[in-house]
Amino acid sequence: MPDARPRRLDVLVEKLTASHIDGLLVTSLPNIRYLTGFSGSSALLIATTREAVLITDFRYQTQVADEVGSTARIAIEPQSLWAGLWQQLAQLPQMQVIGFEAAHLMHRDFQRLVEQGSRWQWRPTNDLVESLRERKDPDEIARIERAAEVATRALARTLESVHAGMSELEVAGVLEKALRDEGSEGFPFPSIVASGPRSALPHARSSSRRLEPGDFLLLDFGAEVGGYCSDLTRTVVVGKATEEQRSVYEIVRGANERASAGVRAGMSGRDADALARDYIQQRGYGEQFGHSLGHGVGLEVHEAPRLSRTAEDALPAGAVVTIEPGIYRPGWGGVRIEDDVVLDPAGPRVLTDFTRELIELG
Amino acid sequence: MPDARPRRLDVLVEKLTASHIDGLLVTSLPNIRYLTGFSGSSALLIATTREAVLITDFRYQTQVADEVGSTARIAIEPQSLWAGLWQQLAQLPQMQVIGFEAAHLMHRDFQRLVEQGSRWQWRPTNDLVESLRERKDPDEIARIERAAEVATRALARTLESVHAGMSELEVAGVLEKALRDEGSEGFPFPSIVASGPRSALPHARSSSRRLEPGDFLLLDFGAEVGGYCSDLTRTVVVGKATEEQRSVYEIVRGANERASAGVRAGMSGRDADALARDYIQQRGYGEQFGHSLGHGVGLEVHEAPRLSRTAEDALPAGAVVTIEPGIYRPGWGGVRIEDDVVLDPAGPRVLTDFTRELIELG
Repeated sequence: MPDARPRRLDVLVEKLTASHIDGLLVTSLPNIRYLTGFSGSSALLIATTREAVLITDFRYQTQVADEVGSTARIAIEPQSLWAGLWQQLAQLPQMQVIGFEAAHLMHRDFQRLVEQGSRWQWRPTNDLVESLRERKDPDEIARIERAAEVATRALARTLESVHAGMSELEVAGVLEKALRDEGSEGFPFPSIVASGPRSALPHARSSSRRLEPGDFLLLDFGAEVGGYCSDLTRTVVVGKATEEQRSVYEIVRGANERASAGVRAGMSGRDADALARDYIQQRGYGEQFGHSLGHGVGLEVHEAPRLSRTAEDALPAGAVVTIEPGIYRPGWGGVRIEDDVVLDPAGPRVLTDFTRELIELG
Repeated sequence: MPDARPRRLDVLVEKLTASHIDGLLVTSLPNIRYLTGFSGSSALLIATTREAVLITDFRYQTQVADEVGSTARIAIEPQSLWAGLWQQLAQLPQMQVIGFEAAHLMHRDFQRLVEQGSRWQWRPTNDLVESLRERKDPDEIARIERAAEVATRALARTLESVHAGMSELEVAGVLEKALRDEGSEGFPFPSIVASGPRSALPHARSSSRRLEPGDFLLLDFGAEVGGYCSDLTRTVVVGKATEEQRSVYEIVRGANERASAGVRAGMSGRDADALARDYIQQRGYGEQFGHSLGHGVGLEVHEAPRLSRTAEDALPAGAVVTIEPGIYRPGWGGVRIEDDVVLDPAGPRVLTDFTRELIELG
């Protein structure tokens, strides 16, 4: 497969030219990874209409050469990345107006631009690289699909051994080991293993609480393959489900199914959100679905586009988004069912192939 | 034990008064956790000379009440934290000059202050809360010590089952499961499991490379207990060590021992760094120790103070710092030995109790 990075830089350069800027200072590490392949935790990238220069430090000397190859010129900076930036910029010809990423530059560092970089004009930009990242190419979709497979296989192995009496932390340990054994490069976010009343906390992490018979058990986690994330949630019952549990579960399942089948490229994020929200609202649980339906997934586990009540923009073809409706009743418990869906021009395709039937453990 | 949070807010208020500001907008989540106890991933805190107001969203409604109690007034904001900020600020009397955290506010959000918050004067501040966090109280040290115990116990269990043929990712899975089983609430940073030539990459993550007899195996990871982190590195040999491996290892061990025993509150970060650096330099490996000696550990795994060639400030009593000298030879391998040390007024005390003798596995 041809290397996509030079093309990505070319598309960015078109955007720079259209914005009348001579270059972009890229400070977002996922944006740097997207453009150059570099996966380290310390870097600045200058992308100009003529060339790209990646500045990093000693610790990444070997790694950066392997990862970036000839996509960008590499500068190893012994003291500070900012010292390296001034040095590199001074050598670049015809640079006057330079964009920076307003959502990824701390005020303190903005002050550096204004003070130490006063010989250039600095212009705030928004989403120049993020808007490229929204539409995934086939190689990116393949990586997310592999990350989805790692996640579903790890979940299947985990549910085989989960039982009442285990702590949420122990369940997380079994799940995370299964993710590693299946090849996950990392954990895109802290695993959520939430049982009983804690399943009603939409952003619980994992605690020392022990599973009890009759608990809901909510697992929300992801895998990482080739730098790309998956994001998967299933809610099961430890033992036999009550009628009430089953009835709430089936509403969430219906909402997930309706949205996963109905979401389309070209639809607004708001209309996509409404596919699930209207369904839940009509069944009397609108107030208990307090978050948005989903978000893009890629190099980051939360990225553009958004699927929410306030998202006016059309969803682009090639985006991979989560569909994750939920119902949360404080003190009683909660259910969330989340899948990753690629918006093919032909229609949505679910990447997370794992049953949505209610599982009763043990 | 009395609740430390009201006292922390009191000390902060003294600093605000001394800086002639009426309040501080706290945007750093670890700083918010330190001051209020809130551990969620979405919040703004306004700390004024009269009261503290914590703004968060729906997802944390139940959790925030449990964690924060009466330490701060809680505002749940349905739309955006910033909308909540303007609403709360408008109700606070006698607010004119408000500080913000220059190192923890994105340029985009700074623009909000200037545009939507133009009726207040906004002043950049640096390290107001971080400087409080440098000195740990006994409860904080106890949490870090428990996190250190979790890490050392998990490492002992892991090394029992590691053998040639396992992949680095599989080793990471065993290690992370052991961390969970021992009670770790999370992983402070992506575990580094680096074998053979990859041990020479100071910031490797974990890969699918399989361990071979004779490899160095470097494990750098942490645990989290009560929100506080530990950070531990050991390097072992898979099978029998060569003379050359043993000789490099013993130099790093000597440097670790010298710095762990010699570091003192009141010493500059530079002088602490020199304890290990001079030792390694005298033995001919100065160029191969390319990073700094260490950093503070607490709510974050990297925080103040720094132990490096450029750190002029005196190390405060009560700080917990890492001591992590290393020698890296590209293509051959690397050794790092890292401990967490609390700077008691009486002298340094090592919290990570795990042998520093060279271990030859299997």
